[in-house]
Amino acid sequence: MASYATWLESSIDGTRLELDRLQSMHAGRPLLVRYDLERARREVRREVLAGRERDLWRYGELLPVQRRENIVSLGEQATPLLACPRLGAQLGLEHLTIKDESHLPTGSFKSRGMALAVSRAKELGVTRLALPTAGNAGGAAAAYAARAGLECYVFMPKDTPLVNRLEAGLHGAKAFLVDGLIDDCGKVVREGAEAMGWFDLSTLKEPYRLEGKKTMGLELCEQLDWTLPDVILYPTGGGTGLVGMWKAFDELARLGWLEGEWADGRRPRLFACQSAGCAPIVRAFDAGERHALRFENAATVASGLRVPAAVGDFLILDAVRASGGQARAVAEERLLPWMFRASSAEGLGICPETAACFAVLEDLVNEGVVSPESRVVVWNTGAAQKYVEALEAPLPELPALGDIDWAAL
Amino acid sequence: MASYATWLESSIDGTRLELDRLQSMHAGRPLLVRYDLERARREVRREVLAGRERDLWRYGELLPVQRRENIVSLGEQATPLLACPRLGAQLGLEHLTIKDESHLPTGSFKSRGMALAVSRAKELGVTRLALPTAGNAGGAAAAYAARAGLECYVFMPKDTPLVNRLEAGLHGAKAFLVDGLIDDCGKVVREGAEAMGWFDLSTLKEPYRLEGKKTMGLELCEQLDWTLPDVILYPTGGGTGLVGMWKAFDELARLGWLEGEWADGRRPRLFACQSAGCAPIVRAFDAGERHALRFENAATVASGLRVPAAVGDFLILDAVRASGGQARAVAEERLLPWMFRASSAEGLGICPETAACFAVLEDLVNEGVVSPESRVVVWNTGAAQKYVEALEAPLPELPALGDIDWAAL
Repeated sequence: MASYATWLESSIDGTRLELDRLQSMHAGRPLLVRYDLERARREVRREVLAGRERDLWRYGELLPVQRRENIVSLGEQATPLLACPRLGAQLGLEHLTIKDESHLPTGSFKSRGMALAVSRAKELGVTRLALPTAGNAGGAAAAYAARAGLECYVFMPKDTPLVNRLEAGLHGAKAFLVDGLIDDCGKVVREGAEAMGWFDLSTLKEPYRLEGKKTMGLELCEQLDWTLPDVILYPTGGGTGLVGMWKAFDELARLGWLEGEWADGRRPRLFACQSAGCAPIVRAFDAGERHALRFENAATVASGLRVPAAVGDFLILDAVRASGGQARAVAEERLLPWMFRASSAEGLGICPETAACFAVLEDLVNEGVVSPESRVVVWNTGAAQKYVEALEAPLPELPALGDIDWAAL
Repeated sequence: MASYATWLESSIDGTRLELDRLQSMHAGRPLLVRYDLERARREVRREVLAGRERDLWRYGELLPVQRRENIVSLGEQATPLLACPRLGAQLGLEHLTIKDESHLPTGSFKSRGMALAVSRAKELGVTRLALPTAGNAGGAAAAYAARAGLECYVFMPKDTPLVNRLEAGLHGAKAFLVDGLIDDCGKVVREGAEAMGWFDLSTLKEPYRLEGKKTMGLELCEQLDWTLPDVILYPTGGGTGLVGMWKAFDELARLGWLEGEWADGRRPRLFACQSAGCAPIVRAFDAGERHALRFENAATVASGLRVPAAVGDFLILDAVRASGGQARAVAEERLLPWMFRASSAEGLGICPETAACFAVLEDLVNEGVVSPESRVVVWNTGAAQKYVEALEAPLPELPALGDIDWAAL
């Protein structure tokens, strides 16, 4: 299972950079890993996957790690794609499924990106990592750094959810609270780079977290027997997942692994979902812009959506538009009710970021943008259990055994 | 994939009970599901597993669900078995692996038991469930009940960890706090049974949670190519997992699926690990007793170990003794340091219950009870992230960007 990665390509002007050395961005914009897909198309058949472990490393030909001994893994198994007929019926949909990323290490989709980024950092000789985080990325980075035996510095807003504040320290990272938002934390990482000699793991500021997120698209397609859904809803903070999935679909098409109409160029409509409390991508989408302005005074309970400026904004907006989808926001007040409604309808633990997707989906069905017979996949990016602040509601205390009024329970 | 289950058998006197109706206990002790293993040995080869999904339902012949359409699933995929050489070296062990159950739905091993118990309850016509819980079981029961469309009542001690208190409500269960321990909560479930018409899901008070936990043993054995490790350390509250694994090894032997010395009757040594703050099984083991007295004033940060009286005590003690293992306790003060030490050494999120196992393992290696070349598996029963009280430690706040002393970070 050799990697077919060939070089890094600038997402803004196509400049090629070497794969065998540590790279960050080019002209202030992300680098994309390119593969020799023509050769892979001749040499690799999708049937080879049948004999491999059901984890993200099964797609090794389409991943950048050069030698398997450099893989840093905490067991990134394929996440379940679960049919949700009860919730679907409530929304007026016949084919609603949820891709549940809470099963991944540290309970979120951030593990996919960190598994690749830390593996490549180790492969290229890095010994100290640093990153800003709005939520789950810090815990994932700390965990993979620990697994790799690397030092890790994590910077997060003071009001980051409690579990995210604690998990970085649990895994031995040096974690700090910053009076600001994720982009303020990003400034700390940039400013300290020279003095501290750390490698900046910020999403899309190095090329490999995107490749990890790309496996969401590869996995989804394989689980659907090499077809794709009609519609994908994705909670969009930094947006790396949407960009990664779009890249996956393109690479699968070039490999000749897609079936039927999907091989002929059809793609799922992508819906980038945000809270009105932080909706820079939606604002740019509505204005017809390719780049998004910083969203001032960003505030939402969905910490992963609290990304006021995304370095990959144009990549998100390009993909959403090319897919025929939309960027949509919903009122902040709709998130927690949807978190509880979706979690109690099907038993999955729906995070507040994904709750935004369900509120968007409700609107899209009501407006007729998504039809009842559409095959819809909603991405649950992390475990609801990690959001104790969102969940907090006191439970009733039971009286002593003899005093219980059973009829009133 | 038809079930080979035949009847239920009393664990205390061998009485046989019908499988096709709702059963709880016999003579106040657990019922065990029996299978026609002679017929299964003739008809089912382990090679059939290769073509199946990598979830616990792949062992359908050895599970009690009669019709696949009754399966209630949230995606119970095989959990990773991860080599941990760095932590192993710290402990003086050459072959340390961790079976990481945090990847399961709701982030803990409780999902295995609940998936089976709720599936069978639904299959047998139950509409309302109730259970006591010391920690993760309540969230798992609520999630599976929601998935099945059943009502669920959860009773837990007032000082149950925050995340466990909240997750039951997230999934729509009716959850209550009780002034007492898990056995006091169990009393509430028993007392209310008639008035409320609920089915008691308490572990080992119905026969199917054990069958779910049994899949830990089946999965481990398959992951080790039909061999077993020399030593297993397991955090022991209700102990259903140890009893389930022991049952799994026995059934695998009868099926003829085990290799080499394991087929000839060799078994892993089982170590039941507890905190000195609640160690009823250890006390009974040391006293040579088959039943354990209630452990008064039970108190431990490892909420899952806070089970002062286990209905399956004799099943745990029988298995531990038959295996040549031991029941061991460690001082409460050693749990949190080991939780952090293990989590930072390898990047896995080690729960406080499993931290007790590492403290026990340290002792066993120092005493020469476990030798350096032993193949050791430690069971990580849940996600560390669910224990916010155990994790809580304030993070340092970073000064404004211009005021950072990088050398002091």
